[in-house]
Amino acid sequence: MKDADQSGHTPVVVALAGGVGGAKLAYGLHRALGERLAVVVNTGDDFEHWGLTVCPDLDTVLYNLAGLNNPEFGWGLAGESHAALAMMRRYGGESWFSLGDGDLATHLLRTERLRAGLNLTQVTFELRTALGVTAELLPMSDQPVRTVVHSDEGVLPFQRYFVQRRCEPRLLRLEFAGMEGARPSPQVLAALARAEAVVLCPSNPYLSLDPILLLPGLAERLRVFAGPVVAVSPIVGGQALKGPAAKIMAELGVEASALAVAQHIAGRIRLDGFVLDAVDAHLADAVASLGVTPLVTDTIMHDAASKERLAREVLALAVRLVRRPTSE
Amino acid sequence: MKDADQSGHTPVVVALAGGVGGAKLAYGLHRALGERLAVVVNTGDDFEHWGLTVCPDLDTVLYNLAGLNNPEFGWGLAGESHAALAMMRRYGGESWFSLGDGDLATHLLRTERLRAGLNLTQVTFELRTALGVTAELLPMSDQPVRTVVHSDEGVLPFQRYFVQRRCEPRLLRLEFAGMEGARPSPQVLAALARAEAVVLCPSNPYLSLDPILLLPGLAERLRVFAGPVVAVSPIVGGQALKGPAAKIMAELGVEASALAVAQHIAGRIRLDGFVLDAVDAHLADAVASLGVTPLVTDTIMHDAASKERLAREVLALAVRLVRRPTSE
Repeated sequence: MKDADQSGHTPVVVALAGGVGGAKLAYGLHRALGERLAVVVNTGDDFEHWGLTVCPDLDTVLYNLAGLNNPEFGWGLAGESHAALAMMRRYGGESWFSLGDGDLATHLLRTERLRAGLNLTQVTFELRTALGVTAELLPMSDQPVRTVVHSDEGVLPFQRYFVQRRCEPRLLRLEFAGMEGARPSPQVLAALARAEAVVLCPSNPYLSLDPILLLPGLAERLRVFAGPVVAVSPIVGGQALKGPAAKIMAELGVEASALAVAQHIAGRIRLDGFVLDAVDAHLADAVASLGVTPLVTDTIMHDAASKERLAREVLALAVRLVRRPTSE
Repeated sequence: MKDADQSGHTPVVVALAGGVGGAKLAYGLHRALGERLAVVVNTGDDFEHWGLTVCPDLDTVLYNLAGLNNPEFGWGLAGESHAALAMMRRYGGESWFSLGDGDLATHLLRTERLRAGLNLTQVTFELRTALGVTAELLPMSDQPVRTVVHSDEGVLPFQRYFVQRRCEPRLLRLEFAGMEGARPSPQVLAALARAEAVVLCPSNPYLSLDPILLLPGLAERLRVFAGPVVAVSPIVGGQALKGPAAKIMAELGVEASALAVAQHIAGRIRLDGFVLDAVDAHLADAVASLGVTPLVTDTIMHDAASKERLAREVLALAVRLVRRPTSE
């Protein structure tokens, strides 16, 4: 991060993100950074539904960055209708996954373009450009990776577990099918080559971040990344703000805490900074003892202003953590 | 038509239909005949849109038989919304063909099932059964036939001509691509083998009926069909009730009249009876001079009752025209 200082340099940032929490911070980062942001998104949740390729995490980030997301759910489009779903029910078709009508346009376009021979990165470029998103939006890989849940009710494709079964089965272990053959896309590697800092958004560390961090070559690439790597805890006061992170951590025998998240991430990559919510201030010393610089602040993002405020605090932490070349 | 008489026998009927007018009479026939009806539908209008296989005529008949059609347009679903279309516009995608949100479920299911290896007849069986339609609903063929319009603005795929260009280009001639390799489906031939009468619905003779009648083998099959063949004029008082039939006839150098429709059909197959609107009563003698029995009645179908009344008049004409075996 050349010329980095605390008085105004806007770094070029790669953010890693999954679902709603990640999308919220990505929105804040986009407000702060504009086209200096590249968001790398988990594709382990992707699946085929109604014959369409559906990428829930990519779309959640896309809609959030475009300001089109449903403000209540965080995912899906604002003001969405569900006439196709109602008709699908009438036909006795699959109706356990609620695809909205406007949302269908995204999946239809994506599927048509993929069938025409474009890869997911190229299609995503077209979609985000059409919606006026200036940040790069990058699926982690163009090779399919599919999260599979091994549970006490058997083996479930991710969305069957997550949506149809509402995360009720007890998780035994996660499998990322296709991972060994997948690679970070060239665009992801290029974004990292340009980046001055990496931000891990407050996404589920097991379901959203692990698929990215376990991509062959990516953790190695992050290990030699020269800039700061900072993460934001998705666990606040022992609870997940949204989603099953706390339940999953308990089932995996890990204490559901911000500290455990920091430990988990630090076990995968080099982690320089970690942002905890004020209610977890008592964990800051334990985070520091991991060799990770803690930042305690309000991490609840309830509107555009709070998303941008948190993003700017995260960026300020990253700028503070720039490692001066030892030759200086 | 064994035991046929005018006092109550309900014949088994095959109806040939295309768009809205055909679907209206098919609805009336369905009310009169229930499962004794098989509707054979033009597939020349079918096309690929948004990566989906769309069958406008099949769906118009399906929605009409199921009582789900938009009562104002005659096609599409009642109370339809267009959120997917709006989002598609936002993406800069194809938006010239107005696919409704509920309607999308039909195309999504169809496309998924076709990709899974079912043929169009099998898929249509699933759709009409799910919607409680007891009549057989049969695409004319499982091999694709695509209507192509040669016009003064060049060669246009049918829906580009019909919807995008609103039939404005002057039609020079019609081409039915794939026709030579297409055959009536086994289910169409089986329905004809069971049928006691054939009804040609008031559909565009060039765009909707010709693709069916020109299917290799079908006209020959109808020529040896033992029961009566009756048609209903889509031209009333020199005008098409809906659609471009009159304009097309003029462009093809044919007078737009009910008589010309009777002549056109009688040039393709053996025609026994022809139903004209009361405003065309003066053409009845000319129809009779073709060797075709005319029936003059009110052919305007504005509600369920008038559809069923016309259907019952058409059926009564067919029953009257049963040719007694010469051996009796």
